[in-house]
Amino acid sequence: MSVVGVLVSGNGSNLQSLLDASRDGRLGAPVGFVLSNKPGVLALERARRAGVPSEVLSHREFPSREAFDARVVERLRAHGVDTVVLAGFLRVVTGVLLDAFPQRVVNIHPSLLPAFPGLDAQAQALVHGVKVTGCTVHLVDPGLDSGPILAQRAVAVLPDDTVETLRDRILAEEHKILPEMVAALVGGRVRLDGRRVTVLPVPPGQ
Amino acid sequence: MSVVGVLVSGNGSNLQSLLDASRDGRLGAPVGFVLSNKPGVLALERARRAGVPSEVLSHREFPSREAFDARVVERLRAHGVDTVVLAGFLRVVTGVLLDAFPQRVVNIHPSLLPAFPGLDAQAQALVHGVKVTGCTVHLVDPGLDSGPILAQRAVAVLPDDTVETLRDRILAEEHKILPEMVAALVGGRVRLDGRRVTVLPVPPGQ
Repeated sequence: MSVVGVLVSGNGSNLQSLLDASRDGRLGAPVGFVLSNKPGVLALERARRAGVPSEVLSHREFPSREAFDARVVERLRAHGVDTVVLAGFLRVVTGVLLDAFPQRVVNIHPSLLPAFPGLDAQAQALVHGVKVTGCTVHLVDPGLDSGPILAQRAVAVLPDDTVETLRDRILAEEHKILPEMVAALVGGRVRLDGRRVTVLPVPPGQ
Repeated sequence: MSVVGVLVSGNGSNLQSLLDASRDGRLGAPVGFVLSNKPGVLALERARRAGVPSEVLSHREFPSREAFDARVVERLRAHGVDTVVLAGFLRVVTGVLLDAFPQRVVNIHPSLLPAFPGLDAQAQALVHGVKVTGCTVHLVDPGLDSGPILAQRAVAVLPDDTVETLRDRILAEEHKILPEMVAALVGGRVRLDGRRVTVLPVPPGQ
């Protein structure tokens, strides 16, 4: 039985989509642990309300990214986590975390990667003037938002969009595909062929 | 009254979408001239069938891109062209062409730019493993597929897609948005604000 751990830095609306999917049986696994690198964020309150153990671990207390990630791995393992979701986690993770959970670290990004990696993807899209953007769920590799893609959804950019209105419409799609892809991963339905990923359908009767 | 000139290198299926739109009154302008840098291509036959004058001008007969473009400009002007469409034209154009038709050179590209510029965009998308790609109509600037975006359409990548099946599904969308955006341009309905483009709707009664 898989256990999902979620790393957060802020509001945690994607965490909520995972908590809801777990409660409804759509995730196929419990969310067993939430770790925030920032204190006082709403994501921690969401974990508390759902009865999920959570901790704050400030990256500022560690001498390097690797040292921070080593402690993160230790805390995840202490809670039996085998599948890690970066849900608005504003830290670049290192090989220390990736090697501990090979092909089991997932990220959600608010653009149609490879377009607009990095921070402020919605603002990047508006400044570039694209007419279509969206969101991407991908396996994390050592690059910046560069790992194999599990799922993407397109979102139209509207003439009057601001960063906020665009962000909210993209978030609505993020909340659909993130639980679906975490369910596929814990369900053993993800096949990799180089960068190309096949997500198998849910078997009949499940 | 605008006159549209189309530069081609191959099959010319996007040229056909423009010829059809012109015939049906959707383009709001005639296609007045077709120029191919390659002899014997189907695009030239499409022009002939539609009664549109066409010429072949081989880039190999010119000492530089600029010299080639200067002759292209001369031939376009000889046919009264004021709006230029690159429809599968496999040549990088220079400032000589762009300065002659400022903000009136349009390109169609088979990806959701800025992802996958350059050649073989559909194959690039498959190799990268994206789940959503599409097509882009944009104004041409001196960069590679980098100008302000007029329209984009998303196309899902399917599990069994080959370059050919993906190319054909993207082409179906190209054939819709290219005539629409050329009509917007000749109709004076395109507004630029930096890179951000607003395409105004067709006025009522037209």
